[in-house]
Amino acid sequence: MSISQAPVVCTVASADRPGIVAAVTAAIAASGGNILELHQHTDRDVGAFTARIEVDAGVDLDALQGCFDDLQVSMGLTCTIYEGGSRPRVVVLCSSVLHCLSDLLARIDLGELSCDIVAIVSDRTDAADLASRAGVPFFHVPVGEDRARQEAAVAALLDEMAPDLVVLARYMRILPEHMVGVYEGRMINVHHSFLPAFIGANPYRRAHERGVKMIGATAHYVTAELDAGPIIEQDVTRVTHADRVSDLIRLGADLERAVLVRAVGLHLEHRVFVVANRTCIFR
Amino acid sequence: MSISQAPVVCTVASADRPGIVAAVTAAIAASGGNILELHQHTDRDVGAFTARIEVDAGVDLDALQGCFDDLQVSMGLTCTIYEGGSRPRVVVLCSSVLHCLSDLLARIDLGELSCDIVAIVSDRTDAADLASRAGVPFFHVPVGEDRARQEAAVAALLDEMAPDLVVLARYMRILPEHMVGVYEGRMINVHHSFLPAFIGANPYRRAHERGVKMIGATAHYVTAELDAGPIIEQDVTRVTHADRVSDLIRLGADLERAVLVRAVGLHLEHRVFVVANRTCIFR
Amino acid sequence: MSISQAPVVCTVASADRPGIVAAVTAAIAASGGNILELHQHTDRDVGAFTARIEVDAGVDLDALQGCFDDLQVSMGLTCTIYEGGSRPRVVVLCSSVLHCLSDLLARIDLGELSCDIVAIVSDRTDAADLASRAGVPFFHVPVGEDRARQEAAVAALLDEMAPDLVVLARYMRILPEHMVGVYEGRMINVHHSFLPAFIGANPYRRAHERGVKMIGATAHYVTAELDAGPIIEQDVTRVTHADRVSDLIRLGADLERAVLVRAVGLHLEHRVFVVANRTCIFR
Amino acid sequence: MSISQAPVVCTVASADRPGIVAAVTAAIAASGGNILELHQHTDRDVGAFTARIEVDAGVDLDALQGCFDDLQVSMGLTCTIYEGGSRPRVVVLCSSVLHCLSDLLARIDLGELSCDIVAIVSDRTDAADLASRAGVPFFHVPVGEDRARQEAAVAALLDEMAPDLVVLARYMRILPEHMVGVYEGRMINVHHSFLPAFIGANPYRRAHERGVKMIGATAHYVTAELDAGPIIEQDVTRVTHADRVSDLIRLGADLERAVLVRAVGLHLEHRVFVVANRTCIFR
Repeated sequence: MSISQAPVVCTVASADRPGIVAAVTAAIAASGGNILELHQHTDRDVGAFTARIEVDAGVDLDALQGCFDDLQVSMGLTCTIYEGGSRPRVVVLCSSVLHCLSDLLARIDLGELSCDIVAIVSDRTDAADLASRAGVPFFHVPVGEDRARQEAAVAALLDEMAPDLVVLARYMRILPEHMVGVYEGRMINVHHSFLPAFIGANPYRRAHERGVKMIGATAHYVTAELDAGPIIEQDVTRVTHADRVSDLIRLGADLERAVLVRAVGLHLEHRVFVVANRTCIFR
Repeated sequence: MSISQAPVVCTVASADRPGIVAAVTAAIAASGGNILELHQHTDRDVGAFTARIEVDAGVDLDALQGCFDDLQVSMGLTCTIYEGGSRPRVVVLCSSVLHCLSDLLARIDLGELSCDIVAIVSDRTDAADLASRAGVPFFHVPVGEDRARQEAAVAALLDEMAPDLVVLARYMRILPEHMVGVYEGRMINVHHSFLPAFIGANPYRRAHERGVKMIGATAHYVTAELDAGPIIEQDVTRVTHADRVSDLIRLGADLERAVLVRAVGLHLEHRVFVVANRTCIFR
Repeated sequence: MSISQAPVVCTVASADRPGIVAAVTAAIAASGGNILELHQHTDRDVGAFTARIEVDAGVDLDALQGCFDDLQVSMGLTCTIYEGGSRPRVVVLCSSVLHCLSDLLARIDLGELSCDIVAIVSDRTDAADLASRAGVPFFHVPVGEDRARQEAAVAALLDEMAPDLVVLARYMRILPEHMVGVYEGRMINVHHSFLPAFIGANPYRRAHERGVKMIGATAHYVTAELDAGPIIEQDVTRVTHADRVSDLIRLGADLERAVLVRAVGLHLEHRVFVVANRTCIFR
Repeated sequence: MSISQAPVVCTVASADRPGIVAAVTAAIAASGGNILELHQHTDRDVGAFTARIEVDAGVDLDALQGCFDDLQVSMGLTCTIYEGGSRPRVVVLCSSVLHCLSDLLARIDLGELSCDIVAIVSDRTDAADLASRAGVPFFHVPVGEDRARQEAAVAALLDEMAPDLVVLARYMRILPEHMVGVYEGRMINVHHSFLPAFIGANPYRRAHERGVKMIGATAHYVTAELDAGPIIEQDVTRVTHADRVSDLIRLGADLERAVLVRAVGLHLEHRVFVVANRTCIFR
């Protein structure tokens, strides 16, 4: 019998049907668990059920896992128990713009994010110094003449690192589809616009030309289609006619680091569910 | 047997104990109900359990009420079923500043708020025209020399109207404690500051003198202590050195109407629970 | 000699060249004027100079106009003096979604906007009641089988009304290019998205499908290209996975009325300058 | 003759009187300068004139300084010319909460803030490692039994460092009045509340108890009265009933670093003027 010493998180994903909450919460109660916080959502468009439940210390984890196994068989529910304390392995890909990487490193150092960056991979050398000061292995994989070769080398590095999560922190290259598929639902990118406005290159220049009064940034899971994956977090800030493209880049940098770090935090706390290319997020 | 033709809202309030969610959701499932959205929160500071559950059309309401009655006895739960379609009766108190009243009337007219204003009561005559155009009875209760007499007249009017909700839409008088007690948890005031900053009179003037960079507004349930009741909604907007007191009043007016109408909407949709002078709000 | 009894606003537009501010402010000083607030901006991309100057009561308006006429000749400056107190004539076009019209009428009634709506024109009859209660002439111009005929009738109505400003308050028809040209820089539309995302029809449905975490609204001057005119004001609000299309419509309505009324207010106070399809706004 | 190779910033502070803008801009024009951006504000409550002017490269700086000297004599204007390129000397004081210091260091490293931190001074040892990795001298000045002794030691250190700016980055001690006086207008503190709410200790705990729906942070110049100096920047974020005190601390940390770094940036760019214990900020 394994009694949890700290709160645990349970997630439930399933096709919708009556009685799911009753069944899952009965299982928790039967295992001696007391619910601290329960979020549940049913996407009526596609009939998908999702829930996140925090259960207080004192639940019998073996009993609960047994109940959840039964519910898998009897009702087709996918229930997962996450105990705290583990440190997910994260690989960061970046290029020459480094504020997002810098912020991730600082927050891990301050204890604000509970994960370990096990490698920093880049097509440029700019991040080497930052990696070195943080004591994180740095891998420079330059592009040279053969793009496919570089992509294969990055893919091989990732395979070797076996990360739980890959973060594209202003990595300026498009990943090949096969790589994206491997890390579905656990590869997060930050795009420097309020998607779906300004998909692709030079969003700040285009925002300035359009004369928008707010600029934004978007963190999303990477899918095969460019800048079209499930959005996790977005934010915006006001700009004025007096802001030039260089000002938008400067102001946008704060949005980018903020949405990326929030998205990574939400993912690490098992708060993000993907349903029909949209995210359901329980805060 | 009474089968609901539209989704219903169930609320649960109780001292915290294990098994509440399981028991309530089992009751819903047993009554043929399918849960669309469930929010639950346990305030660990005071051990209070609250939940709001939307159940799809098709639940047997008599059966569900029976189950809930049983849960009252067996577990001490207060479960309430709210069917849609009713129009709560609202009385608005106001003085001479009318943008909040104007906005409430416009939104009811547009169908954005589902309630009826059955009376507008004021110590001033300014709102008479607005009331008349909206076809709402207007009661002028001037103060004159005897403050207590005016308060008694207002209290008598409210008693007669038997409102489900009382809204203080920039009513510039402090209500006597006995009146406040009668409408505990169903009298909403809007204060023109970001509480607890600038409690009391002339908040915009004081905000200007302090040189704040944002002003705010707060909607809260009224309690005996001035501007100290449970906060339902707050919002802020940026101001600059160039904004004079008159500008703050103008900019703040938009905050006041926004937070008041949102607070009223949240209350009408049974999304607000009061626990230990704080609100728990399920959006 | 005509001495201003209240502050006046002066605007300056010109190709950029050295000495403009010195020349204009010397003219104001020579006319006995004291500057309360001066905003100036030079768009370096296109070399355009713009300024807005508030001059305190006590300036000799005839003398100032004389100086400005001289500056037109000597330096090519377009300087304009706006005395307060006039009530610009506004025509509102709308269809069946009425919250923006309702809000404009309420704010004029409350004295928050200094203008007169001289006509409400619609392809639908829904606004007739609102117009009637506000005492504003209502013109129903239905579409029928001949779209061009309806457009001509609307154009003729506008001509007849000679408005200073035309407001498209969720008018659901695209105006013909010739009409747009007549009201260049004085026809404001509100679009129910954070432009340039979701140009065109059904922006909320498309926002929901994309799974954005914020929705927006945009007020802009109308130009021949759909939803591509100079942006005056934008705003956004957070949404979640739990918000359905109908929720986005409801939440977006508050953004739409807010950005439209702010844009109209900025325009009426001579705070908006158009430079290279972007707006320069002095708040 | 010294012709500026890059844009320069000129600031003007004075008692209000007619003709200041005309005189200053005439001086700039006479010195061959072209104005890129001009912000001007007159505080009518106290009759104070302030302006910030960006002048394009190509102005004769000696000629301009000569004109400004004349204007000092003839009109009593305080005009200052700031050439770019200098690196102000900053001393940071901190205690054991390090996210603000960490963020300042990261942003200087990234080139986002143009200044040098010449020393980090603390009553605790927690920041030693961060200082060491950034290559900044760290001075530990523990409190021990004699508070006055510690204060004197800190004061002596500051004197020795001769900083242009002192930043209190969550320094948890109140500075003696004599120290505050020395650095009037160039000592910036961040307070972890939306001032004037929750002045003093434990603002997040008090915010939680009050049940506010937004928390804030405030950066301000330090004056003798606690948390009452001129506010430079404020920001807020939404919180919910589900956020415990520890969540508020975590969410607030992002506000604190954001407002502090923005305030420091505004100060370094000569955008902040203090008038009557309020700031006038030209963005």
